[in-house]
Amino acid sequence: MISKSRLNYVISLRKKKNREKDGFYVIEGDKLVREYLFSGSKMLLLAAKPEFIDSLPELQKELISEIEPVGYNDLKKMSTLKTPHNAIAVLPIPDLKIIPSEVFMELSAALDFVQDPGNLGTIIRAAAWFGVRHIFCSDDCVDVYNPKVVQASMGALLNVRVSYGSLTGFLSGALEVPVPVYGAMLEGKSIYSASLGTRGVILLGNESRGISPELRKLVTEKLFIPKFTDAPAGIDSLNVGMAASVVFSEFARRRNK
Amino acid sequence: MISKSRLNYVISLRKKKNREKDGFYVIEGDKLVREYLFSGSKMLLLAAKPEFIDSLPELQKELISEIEPVGYNDLKKMSTLKTPHNAIAVLPIPDLKIIPSEVFMELSAALDFVQDPGNLGTIIRAAAWFGVRHIFCSDDCVDVYNPKVVQASMGALLNVRVSYGSLTGFLSGALEVPVPVYGAMLEGKSIYSASLGTRGVILLGNESRGISPELRKLVTEKLFIPKFTDAPAGIDSLNVGMAASVVFSEFARRRNK
Repeated sequence: MISKSRLNYVISLRKKKNREKDGFYVIEGDKLVREYLFSGSKMLLLAAKPEFIDSLPELQKELISEIEPVGYNDLKKMSTLKTPHNAIAVLPIPDLKIIPSEVFMELSAALDFVQDPGNLGTIIRAAAWFGVRHIFCSDDCVDVYNPKVVQASMGALLNVRVSYGSLTGFLSGALEVPVPVYGAMLEGKSIYSASLGTRGVILLGNESRGISPELRKLVTEKLFIPKFTDAPAGIDSLNVGMAASVVFSEFARRRNK
Repeated sequence: MISKSRLNYVISLRKKKNREKDGFYVIEGDKLVREYLFSGSKMLLLAAKPEFIDSLPELQKELISEIEPVGYNDLKKMSTLKTPHNAIAVLPIPDLKIIPSEVFMELSAALDFVQDPGNLGTIIRAAAWFGVRHIFCSDDCVDVYNPKVVQASMGALLNVRVSYGSLTGFLSGALEVPVPVYGAMLEGKSIYSASLGTRGVILLGNESRGISPELRKLVTEKLFIPKFTDAPAGIDSLNVGMAASVVFSEFARRRNK
């Protein structure tokens, strides 16, 4: 049995303010909880159906400070989903300081004001799949520990370090090394024919306004995903999650050719 | 002023049953309505703020059988969004019979049991962007005229013909021509090194189970998007919308090289 105050604590972490104050966030889902345990993630609390708890290896249980067997009704109260999963866990937010000398040795991504949680989740999944290990977000991006982002990222957060700060500072750092700043923008060069390196920063912009004017100035290579249609109306853009998938894919293809 | 029965009629079209009975569906949004009118789409009804109606060219208004100026409250009742747009329109569902001899002369897509409206909308957007003009859906896919699909497709439905039917029949037809059936599946060959043609069908499977066993037998070229990470846990798949973006992009790149 979980206490009412503990249950309310889990619910309180839906708010960014509370996550920032306490330094904890919530993951939900049988598969997700198993993957985090499998990868050695420590947990403050696991609230789950007794069968789920019983199924965990003893060594993994040692990663968890507090294990609470709960029923459907309590899970439903804590869940942000219409139908709750069998397991919810509270984890410490990792301290992910970007070490520029490390990040700039490989290909990373920077996000300017990406607001939609589903889009950020998709971008993290694409990054994990295509080997982009660092994502640097402007402070006005949606919070990566927002439950919808965690859900949409489907475990990919285990593979990608996401941190926040001033993009001007981060990109200026890239230019000092120097490594290229690739900007996905409408007036760019076709990504299929542009020269793509194995180091640098891929900058992706906001869902409707794109990359902001002051950051555009820091872009050294403008990239564009060509549109293969001559229809006068209809589609006029890809969303930022789709664009990230295509751009990361093309960088990965070239790197491994 | 819109009558109560007319307002309820718009709401009734949220249900697939009613759309199928009457042959009409709803689009919502200032930009979307303008694009459909710009492309010459006829409308049964436009319910919109008076300013929106006044802003339309006279020639476009002639495409609309019934124009109803409405206020925020009526728009809110008809809208499926939290915040309604200024315009909602009812359109006839086009009769989109696939003409195989036409479809098999180019690259098309086939979807096996894609259930999520957002995913179908994303796939339609990706298809429109990368020049895939026909999508053939299994009968158990989510309905393309579902309001969430229409919303997620962002006007791309103007560029892509989406039809429904038996995938076994459709793919068997492709094999008779013959054109290749490309299946996106885990045990496939890397899409970056596989030979990709300018004709054929790209088959994408369900969000969790992939392509169903009986359709796998009809796949002639198995394709896989390689994963560029060696992490033991975390990401284990791309979602079908991201996969479609990457696959369509790679086909388009090769076709236009």
